[in-house]
Amino acid sequence: MIIVMKPGSKDSDIQEISKVLNSLGLGVHISQGTERTIIGVIGDKRKLNDVPIELMPGVEKLVPIVESYKLAGKTFKPEPSVIEVNGVKIGGKELVIMAGPCAVENHDQIMAAALAVKKSGAQFLRGGAFKPRTSPYAFQGLEEEGLKLLKEAKDATGLNIITEVTSEKAVEIADKYVDMFQVGARNVQNFQLLREIGRSKKPVLFKRGPATTVDEWLNAAEYIMSEGNYNVVLCERGIRTFETSTRNTLDISAVPVVKNLSHLPIIVDPSHAAGKSQYVLPLSKAAIAAGADGLIIEVHPNPKSALSDAAQQLTPEDFDYLCKDIAKIAEIIGREFRYGN
Amino acid sequence: MIIVMKPGSKDSDIQEISKVLNSLGLGVHISQGTERTIIGVIGDKRKLNDVPIELMPGVEKLVPIVESYKLAGKTFKPEPSVIEVNGVKIGGKELVIMAGPCAVENHDQIMAAALAVKKSGAQFLRGGAFKPRTSPYAFQGLEEEGLKLLKEAKDATGLNIITEVTSEKAVEIADKYVDMFQVGARNVQNFQLLREIGRSKKPVLFKRGPATTVDEWLNAAEYIMSEGNYNVVLCERGIRTFETSTRNTLDISAVPVVKNLSHLPIIVDPSHAAGKSQYVLPLSKAAIAAGADGLIIEVHPNPKSALSDAAQQLTPEDFDYLCKDIAKIAEIIGREFRYGN
Amino acid sequence: MIIVMKPGSKDSDIQEISKVLNSLGLGVHISQGTERTIIGVIGDKRKLNDVPIELMPGVEKLVPIVESYKLAGKTFKPEPSVIEVNGVKIGGKELVIMAGPCAVENHDQIMAAALAVKKSGAQFLRGGAFKPRTSPYAFQGLEEEGLKLLKEAKDATGLNIITEVTSEKAVEIADKYVDMFQVGARNVQNFQLLREIGRSKKPVLFKRGPATTVDEWLNAAEYIMSEGNYNVVLCERGIRTFETSTRNTLDISAVPVVKNLSHLPIIVDPSHAAGKSQYVLPLSKAAIAAGADGLIIEVHPNPKSALSDAAQQLTPEDFDYLCKDIAKIAEIIGREFRYGN
Amino acid sequence: MIIVMKPGSKDSDIQEISKVLNSLGLGVHISQGTERTIIGVIGDKRKLNDVPIELMPGVEKLVPIVESYKLAGKTFKPEPSVIEVNGVKIGGKELVIMAGPCAVENHDQIMAAALAVKKSGAQFLRGGAFKPRTSPYAFQGLEEEGLKLLKEAKDATGLNIITEVTSEKAVEIADKYVDMFQVGARNVQNFQLLREIGRSKKPVLFKRGPATTVDEWLNAAEYIMSEGNYNVVLCERGIRTFETSTRNTLDISAVPVVKNLSHLPIIVDPSHAAGKSQYVLPLSKAAIAAGADGLIIEVHPNPKSALSDAAQQLTPEDFDYLCKDIAKIAEIIGREFRYGN
Repeated sequence: MIIVMKPGSKDSDIQEISKVLNSLGLGVHISQGTERTIIGVIGDKRKLNDVPIELMPGVEKLVPIVESYKLAGKTFKPEPSVIEVNGVKIGGKELVIMAGPCAVENHDQIMAAALAVKKSGAQFLRGGAFKPRTSPYAFQGLEEEGLKLLKEAKDATGLNIITEVTSEKAVEIADKYVDMFQVGARNVQNFQLLREIGRSKKPVLFKRGPATTVDEWLNAAEYIMSEGNYNVVLCERGIRTFETSTRNTLDISAVPVVKNLSHLPIIVDPSHAAGKSQYVLPLSKAAIAAGADGLIIEVHPNPKSALSDAAQQLTPEDFDYLCKDIAKIAEIIGREFRYGN
Repeated sequence: MIIVMKPGSKDSDIQEISKVLNSLGLGVHISQGTERTIIGVIGDKRKLNDVPIELMPGVEKLVPIVESYKLAGKTFKPEPSVIEVNGVKIGGKELVIMAGPCAVENHDQIMAAALAVKKSGAQFLRGGAFKPRTSPYAFQGLEEEGLKLLKEAKDATGLNIITEVTSEKAVEIADKYVDMFQVGARNVQNFQLLREIGRSKKPVLFKRGPATTVDEWLNAAEYIMSEGNYNVVLCERGIRTFETSTRNTLDISAVPVVKNLSHLPIIVDPSHAAGKSQYVLPLSKAAIAAGADGLIIEVHPNPKSALSDAAQQLTPEDFDYLCKDIAKIAEIIGREFRYGN
Repeated sequence: MIIVMKPGSKDSDIQEISKVLNSLGLGVHISQGTERTIIGVIGDKRKLNDVPIELMPGVEKLVPIVESYKLAGKTFKPEPSVIEVNGVKIGGKELVIMAGPCAVENHDQIMAAALAVKKSGAQFLRGGAFKPRTSPYAFQGLEEEGLKLLKEAKDATGLNIITEVTSEKAVEIADKYVDMFQVGARNVQNFQLLREIGRSKKPVLFKRGPATTVDEWLNAAEYIMSEGNYNVVLCERGIRTFETSTRNTLDISAVPVVKNLSHLPIIVDPSHAAGKSQYVLPLSKAAIAAGADGLIIEVHPNPKSALSDAAQQLTPEDFDYLCKDIAKIAEIIGREFRYGN
Repeated sequence: MIIVMKPGSKDSDIQEISKVLNSLGLGVHISQGTERTIIGVIGDKRKLNDVPIELMPGVEKLVPIVESYKLAGKTFKPEPSVIEVNGVKIGGKELVIMAGPCAVENHDQIMAAALAVKKSGAQFLRGGAFKPRTSPYAFQGLEEEGLKLLKEAKDATGLNIITEVTSEKAVEIADKYVDMFQVGARNVQNFQLLREIGRSKKPVLFKRGPATTVDEWLNAAEYIMSEGNYNVVLCERGIRTFETSTRNTLDISAVPVVKNLSHLPIIVDPSHAAGKSQYVLPLSKAAIAAGADGLIIEVHPNPKSALSDAAQQLTPEDFDYLCKDIAKIAEIIGREFRYGN
């Protein structure tokens, strides 16, 4: 942390600040420039979290030098983390694909989806049981009934099951059925929910919010990790920008940026980023080429009858084609994906 | 709702779509253009919420004509709503100011804040008991203990009490102490929370999210209202943009835009928008001049010792000055604010 | 400028950097933290403009401490600048209003507009002769013919004339007719144009670009000023964000932010920000309340027949009403505006 | 174009609008909904460019149905365009790579860069002679002297030469030296410049602006094409968003979106998007995987001595490695790139 003093700040201001910092057990390093004096703070910056240095006389601004998250960062753990879910390793050499419908609708739909995605090589079945929808008049999910259907599909196929949890109560219910939680973009800073998941220890797919910087996202991941759950997989799913030709703007750069800042695995959700199924294939290939550890893709046995986000769900045929392509790219870039079953 | 067909779509495609719409009880109006055929859908658009028309053969895109919210809109209720909280009317002629510290810290702090803001004319005391903070290592609030302190301040001053609720459990606890709930920006699409508040009937200050369009915000308000709680006051608090000289970018235009689309009152939070106390005064004056029904402002008896968001909290002296200015502008624009007590 | 070293950087890296800085006549101040070493650079940061310190071994990132513009900043000139145009002072106690049609269309139109805006108190007549339009098939302006019509309107009313210049050639032509140039948002970083205007010495209204930070905007102003033309008036006109209910998002906070960073006057263009005439009045009042030095407003004698941007132009009646309101607010906030003629 | 009427609009309003449309030679199709009447406009929408229908009584809003550009769109020309520059085909099966330093600095630098990029397989040498820089105190380019050096490099290597032009005068000068113009992001709506380039017929690489939607970008391309120059290659280079971990946010989705809307080729500039050389390789691979027709990449024989944008320039070694990777991915996705010379 650097404290930049105003032009013309007084020696007594600087002494006052030094005194406060020293009283917190922090070291001080003063540097007299031609236009400004700056004060370097030496020690654990988090000691300053609740001390408003920026209001002390003579202070112009604070400039952070190191990131404010710790457990999620590479300084804490330089080597990449591999999160294991029933033998499937996320963040290792093998790419992981999670696929399935936006929402669980009924037994036949989820079973058909499970068989189809398994056949093409997916390791996880996704399916929403608790659906946060923009309008309260849209389909909101089958809740526990949907989880039971997911469990049946798991029993039939051996796929791991992942579902979005939207409240502390949903965490409690889903805990009995699923192999991995998903936190959706709208809940990226629902800190109560994050803490609850942190206490559960179950692996979690943690989506970036539409207006969340990478730095804030890693800080939010820290909420989960600081409760003791280190099994966090990040998921880039597009950010909100002025461009409207896609539902969100996939921030493909977030993949190498996260790899640079954090040891956590990162996968990409091209379905929600694009909002249109026709863009899912090119964006999936781009994500893998950029270094993502996997994909989460919406697949519906019959998209035309889907109860939510129909426009962005692939048919099983399109998904199969995608998996074939991903397997080929994987090889080129030194990864692996076992197409087919 | 308009359905735009692709160039070269077939008659049979159009007939198929008409059949589906008719089966839902919707009327159809076909218009043959030079480049495209368009189909007008006549009837309640919400019948289409769960039918993926956009995937039917020949369809290029859907164009919504009317907004998807209902209860929050002016078509439903053209005249402005006035929300009354223990005799204080929000959305009427009189401007309403809510003020107090970012977080409740202790008895002396909240009592000093309450007395100060009351003295200058505020009608509500704000104070956070449940604090969502970007970093898990920052102060997270006193929870129920903080609510008790707020209640003491209310008993001493007669001010209405408002506090942020961040989970269903927090709603339950706060319900016993406060006069008005606040939903923070991070929870604008935490639909579980919104429904819970909808069921409680207690007035709620509903903040816009940093990446929420006005349309999505009104749809989210609909979640609260569709559960039966019509006592919703909107609060613009800045959106996330590329500009970094302020914490968020206050979308001042949202004030007249909301007045145009909705009957709900709207107030402005210049403290979170700016993130710096020096900008709170000019932005407060701008908000009132633009037609806002009030303000929510962070005031701390001693900002330099504040445990959260110190940089954006006003001193009681600055707040008193602000109230004086607001009273003068109120008069000019045909509103009222009783400065002083 | 602070140079932040990577964790584990070597002493030899630091010595190498010190050597380079010293060779440029810059001082060095080294501060050893617990996680990072940082190097303070002492002296004129601009000496580093063309030296890629960030590529030297061991360097993690550079952190600027002072702004990169100079002439536009308050460090260079702490007291506010007043730009005088034929006796009208922009940035003084009196508010300045520039008004007129989006585009000059014909003699009767511009004359009617001039008489109307003069009558309500405007000091400047605006009117586009060179019109940059999103589509090449839209009306592009009357060019020199339009300038002659503006000049006639000036001769008849005594109003100052301002028009947008879009190329070096337009500067040359317009120079003979107008009292003030305007640089539009699309040309905010058309540096050739800025230099040309810098050489002309004529006062210039310099609009912010839709994706320009305040910092970049002041740097762009520096292009004009560094050629010797200090007569720069800034104009906030909305930035591009995800919100679509207005054409742009008026960044009202830019008014106090610019006042804090720069000595240059700043006015607001609510017409282009909103894109809809119904929002011009509330945004104009907000701008003045926030501390703007004036407004530039689109007024057309008959908006329904306007050849460009019809939706955002006020009628003379609406403009007159606006001026009356501005005069009242001006008084309250310690400014002045002479409504009427 | 659809005209949406206000609820409660009068029959006479609709008749009035019909009359105006008919007088312009446009057909009218009226559709009575339950909440709104809508009017379909049949015929060439561009006839409405200068007629403010949105101001007529009873009108709520206009909804465009077809895009406003024509020559740049797929309706005009459904099959992809291939732009040929001295035998190099952009938009065909073979991928095209343009590479070279940000700025031409001197003979040795540009010659070393040319030989290096040629050796790895690049077909174009890029190098800035006119440099638009954020600060006026940074290096601004060698201008004509730089063009001569580029020409020498071309003569020595046979590479095509591309350079940015920033003004009508620069177009005139560069015309004698280069094989392809580049329009930079800051000039995307500098319509004077676009028209000038439209008149020249020389192929042009047309970069997207940081705040330009795909729709506006294609409309801007229309400025060049409507003057008769159809040799336009688009270049995605990142847009401005709230995220700051990269210089801009590469909008990778723009690649398939443009392929869907336009017949023009599109390449990607990962160097300016990322702003950091370490992200250039993953983003390049992503761009090609997403379907881009090529890349433009900054390569400097010695980045540490570069006079501009040093942080984003690759070494020749890194570039060689990149070309090798691109060749492998090209094969997988059915394209071609001849690595090496």
